Parts: sequence; C-alpha cells; structure tokens
Amino acid sequence: MNGQIHPSARLGDGTTLGAGCVIGENVRIGAQCRLGHHVVIHDDTVVGDGVRIDDHATLGKRPMRAANSATTKEQELPPLSVGEACIVGTGVVLYRGAAIESKVLMADLCTVRENVSIGRGTIVGRGVTVENFCTIGRFCKLESECYLCAYSTLEDRVFIAPGVVTSNDNFVGRTQERFKHFKGVTVKKGGRIGAGSVTLPGIVVGEDGLVAAGSVVTRDVPARKVVVGAPARVWRDVPVAQLLENQGWVDS
Amino acid sequence: MNGQIHPSARLGDGTTLGAGCVIGENVRIGAQCRLGHHVVIHDDTVVGDGVRIDDHATLGKRPMRAANSATTKEQELPPLSVGEACIVGTGVVLYRGAAIESKVLMADLCTVRENVSIGRGTIVGRGVTVENFCTIGRFCKLESECYLCAYSTLEDRVFIAPGVVTSNDNFVGRTQERFKHFKGVTVKKGGRIGAGSVTLPGIVVGEDGLVAAGSVVTRDVPARKVVVGAPARVWRDVPVAQLLENQGWVDS
Amino acid sequence: MNGQIHPSARLGDGTTLGAGCVIGENVRIGAQCRLGHHVVIHDDTVVGDGVRIDDHATLGKRPMRAANSATTKEQELPPLSVGEACIVGTGVVLYRGAAIESKVLMADLCTVRENVSIGRGTIVGRGVTVENFCTIGRFCKLESECYLCAYSTLEDRVFIAPGVVTSNDNFVGRTQERFKHFKGVTVKKGGRIGAGSVTLPGIVVGEDGLVAAGSVVTRDVPARKVVVGAPARVWRDVPVAQLLENQGWVDS
Repeated sequence: MNGQIHPSARLGDGTTLGAGCVIGENVRIGAQCRLGHHVVIHDDTVVGDGVRIDDHATLGKRPMRAANSATTKEQELPPLSVGEACIVGTGVVLYRGAAIESKVLMADLCTVRENVSIGRGTIVGRGVTVENFCTIGRFCKLESECYLCAYSTLEDRVFIAPGVVTSNDNFVGRTQERFKHFKGVTVKKGGRIGAGSVTLPGIVVGEDGLVAAGSVVTRDVPARKVVVGAPARVWRDVPVAQLLENQGWVDS
Repeated sequence: MNGQIHPSARLGDGTTLGAGCVIGENVRIGAQCRLGHHVVIHDDTVVGDGVRIDDHATLGKRPMRAANSATTKEQELPPLSVGEACIVGTGVVLYRGAAIESKVLMADLCTVRENVSIGRGTIVGRGVTVENFCTIGRFCKLESECYLCAYSTLEDRVFIAPGVVTSNDNFVGRTQERFKHFKGVTVKKGGRIGAGSVTLPGIVVGEDGLVAAGSVVTRDVPARKVVVGAPARVWRDVPVAQLLENQGWVDS
Repeated sequence: MNGQIHPSARLGDGTTLGAGCVIGENVRIGAQCRLGHHVVIHDDTVVGDGVRIDDHATLGKRPMRAANSATTKEQELPPLSVGEACIVGTGVVLYRGAAIESKVLMADLCTVRENVSIGRGTIVGRGVTVENFCTIGRFCKLESECYLCAYSTLEDRVFIAPGVVTSNDNFVGRTQERFKHFKGVTVKKGGRIGAGSVTLPGIVVGEDGLVAAGSVVTRDVPARKVVVGAPARVWRDVPVAQLLENQGWVDS
C-alpha cells in the first residue's frame, strides 16, 4: 500500500503521499505537496509546489479517441502542468495537454481535457466538464455541474453558474460542413451566465454582460446588459453595483 | 492489497473490507458492514451497523477552501457520521461535518458536503451534489444529477427530479452585499420539483406544491398548486390522488 | 500494488494490468486489453479483446436497492459483458446486467446500470447516466452530462446533446397508479435532441426528428421536423443536408 513510484520521478522536499499512489515515469512534483490515497499521476506530469491532490484523482491521462469522434484528434500532447498552490479534488480527472496556472481549485469529480489552459486563481466547480480546446482566463468561477463545450473561451473574471450548458454545433452532429463551424461560447471579461441557462453555438457574451438564470441564449449578449428568457432578450442594464470595475478586486 | 488500517480504528463484528481500503485514525465502523475495494475513510468518521460502502468511495474528506470561495468557511468540523443500514455508492464523496441518519441511499458519484444533515430513509441519487449548509429531511428523493445549492432546506418527503438546478445568489457573484442574502431553495413537506427545472435564489415551494418539468421558478410556489412555465405561473391544483396525505405512507 | 486477481479469472494474451487492480471470481478478459490502475472488475464479468479500461473504473457492480426505490427490482442478473475494442474511461461505473456491444466508448465518470443494452459503436459521453431498463442502438451519441432515465429506448444513430434531461413519471413520485405508466423517452432512428432540452415522460421523437436546444418537449416530435420552444412546437423541416440518409455513413 505504499504505492508505486517510478524511479525517474522526482518529489520535492516535504511532499507526502497517501496509500496506493501511482507515480509515472518522469513525473515532477514540487515541494510541500500533499497527495491523498490512490492518486494516479501519469508520465511526464509536472506539479508545482504546495499543491493538494485528493484521493482517487487522476492526472495526466491520455485522451480516448472514439472511432467516430467529431473533435478529438490524434496528436502529440505536451505533459499536463499544474501550477503552485493548486487544489485538485477527489476523483478529478486532468488530461495530458492541459496547462493549469497557480492557485486554481479543481473541485471533486471535475474533468479538464487536453488542449485547455486555465488561468491563475480560477475555480472549476464540482463535477464540471471542461472539454478540449478551451481557453479559460484568470479568476473565473465555473460553478458546480456547469458544462463547457469544446472550442469555448472565457476571459478573466467570468462567472458560469451551476448547471449551465453550452453548445458548439449548429448542425447537431450532421453534415461535413459542421466541422468548419464548431464554435462554443465566448464570454468576455467579467461576463456572467446564470444558473441552468443554455447557450447556442457561437454565442458571445460581451464584457460584464449577464444572462439571467434559466435562459436560452440564441443571440449575442451586449456588454453590460442583462438578458433573460427563452429566447433571451435584453431586459435592462447590469446594476452599477455589480459591474466588475466596482468590486474592488485586485488580481493578486 | 490488504489496505492500511490505523491501529486506533475499530471495526464491528462481521464487517468485511475489500482490497486496498484505507481506514484513518479513530474511525469507528459498526457491525456487519460491507466495504468494497479502495474505499477511503478519513479520521474520526463514525459508520453505523449494516452499512454498505462501494468501491472507490471517500468518507470524511476535509473541505478544500479556494482563496476566493464565497461560502466555504475555515472552521472546525465534527466527524462525518453515517447511520445504520445506509448504502454508499461507488465513487461517492462524503465530507467531514455531514450528519447522515439511517437507511439513506447515496448513489454512485454523489457528493455530500460539510454542514449538511440528511434525514432517515432519504435517497440521494446518482451524481447529485448537495452543497454545504443544507438541511434535508426524511424520506426525500433527490433524483439523479439534481443540484442542491448551499443554504437550501428540504423538509420531509420532498421530491427533486433529475437535472433540477437550484441557485442562491441574486447578485451572481458580485457585491459585498450578496453575502447577507445567500439563500437557496426551501421546499416544504411533500413539495416536488419536476425534471430539469431551475429555481431562482430564495424560492419557497409550499407544502405539497409542484413545479412542472422544465420550468423556471421566479416566485414562490403556493401549497398544493402546480406551477409551470418560464417564468412559472400557477396552472392548477395538485391532483388529489397525488397529495401526500393520500399516499398511505408510513414513516418507518 | 500488483493487485488481487482471483485464481479463477482468465486474462487473454498480451493483456496488461496497472497497479492495484482487483479482478473477481470467474472474470474473463480477452487478449490485448489494457487496464489502468485501481480498476475493479467484479465476479463473472466478460470483457472482449482489445478493450481499454482506464484508472478507477468499476465493472460488474451489483445494484444497490433503496428501501423505497420505485424502479430497482430484486433480481438475478446476467454478468456484465463488454464487447471487443470498447473503451472504458476513468471512474466509469458499469453494472452487472448490462450488455455492451463492440467499439462502444464510455467516457470518464459515466454510469451504465443493469438491464441495459448498448449497440456497437455508440458513444456514451463524460458523466452520462444511463439508468436501468434502457435500450440503446448502434452508433448513437450520448453527449456529456446527458441523462437517460429508466425505460427509455434509443434506436440507431440517435444523438442526445449535452445536458439533456429525460423523465419517465407523470405522477412525479406519487400514487400506486404510476407504476403502470413509467415510460421514458423513445427516439426513433436518427432522432436528435439538442443541448439542455427536457423531455416529458413517454415522449416519442420520430425518425430524424430534431428538438432544438433549450426546449421543453411536451408532445411527440414528428419525423423529420424540428421542434423548438417551451413547450416545443413544430418550427420547420429538418434541413435536407442533415437527414440521416444524406450523411453517407456506413454502419461498419
């Protein structure tokens, strides 16, 4: 139960491992990290200092390609990198080919796929799916159980509420034409999407724009406007007190 | 592969463990329990008699606090307690600071966080998230993949259908003011929320009230009324045959 | 960490196991399979040749029956069978009593329950729940985080988008009468349901019918029509270029 650590792996000073951990070839783990039980870290993964990784997490997994997948490519991927002071929850699955900056929280049972970058201080909530080819900025919050489809972009300080569903294929899995048009959601700096909302392919939420809970977004959301309904329409301005510039937040 | 059991842990008569289990300091497990493989039980957890715990489950996990979490506090937490004859599914994550009564079923891959209580005989479905600071009564059903946000209250015999999303923050992550107002859903005795519905912050569903599937609930739901739509409006009375008092259920 | 393999289990030529795997009594695994770390395979499970099974997956689990479950029966179940060249993701849970044909991809953290059949070449996405008593055809795509309720039928080439929620109980957990009427969704050949849509109990989507994203489906969907809205109404014909017959797909 003391696990299986490849002789080429390097663990920093003060790093501790729980029972049954498996550490692959050429893995680099920083100092003062705390790994739980049955954690699996695949070959070449790089983990910074002071990272907490909870039980049953899997890091550096290689993609599984279905015969008829639409968006998963055969490719060489750079190793997974996890920045310092990140927290990786129980049962989390992080893919090779993801680049995660420092102080990111990835809560229990979330998945981050290949060809994804996540900026410093972002929270990826419980059960969240971040599909491949996504770019996520700094200090975002992806709340529990939201779904970020492939080819999405979130700028800094974006808020995605629980249960939000995004989509990227207006052809719904048909035609060859569709491969040219896959496009997920783009949320500009400080944009927010409320609980349980659904966004159609290619939607852009403008800076500090807000989608009210339970909406179906079929048109772009103007900056600093609140949209609501199904299909969502402009309802009013975002309250001044809620604008990003009035939060007093420092990006540290 | 016979696991790692802390010498201070106590296991009752007839309790069996699968391969690779990890049992922490001062854990108390009752008699006639059946633990699967690779189960992890953290320090101080108390498990009653006759509990089934399936593979890869994690019990008694300590919270992970993000630098900018809105609702997770630094605190001392009482040990996790799991009552007799409970069933804990595969990959389930239960936090320290949850109190779970007897005969509760927690299905595969669900999460129950700290500062939560769950009453006797309740079913927490597959993949369900119960966030922190929730109170759940007896004989409730939280169906697969529903999401119960922090600061929610479910009284007895409440039914939450698959894919329901609840919310608790009308300020959508902005302003200091919001911290005074966090409020999830409150569902009174026998209230029901239909599949895929979304509830706005602070909604109260009255006794035996019913939200039809696919609704967006922006106002409180009167007792014994059915609401439907987005935004949901009163449609009709709950059919008499469906009232809680006409089910012949005994709370045993 | 070399795991625990029951002496009665049989592994085919060239099959490799990661650390900490647990292989039960009478399990049969084909040739050239690749098992990850901490994989658990319960008694009697049959796995074909060339199957990839990732870390922390659980195969052949027996159902958990809650005292007051509505649809889980006490029963004898045939062993789980997984066909050749399938891919089983990280943390996946497959139940005894499921029959999975060849080349099926079951992505991370999905669950397939008992009394389910899945046809060749189908993709079951990340986090998907397939409840008991479902029949799924060949070359379907169940995208990430969709929910397929008990008593559902998907014919061949069906597409269920991310976050779709289906339901099967018009009585929402009340009356004895309801037990006679449980009925999930039926999607005929090539039918498609868009992202985040909700279907009411018993809905039939006709051949090549399409539900637009974010809809609430309260009536059957005619063949080759697009429905949209809440409640969903017929909007137009499915574009000819998107019809199944015009994709040039060969079922190989």
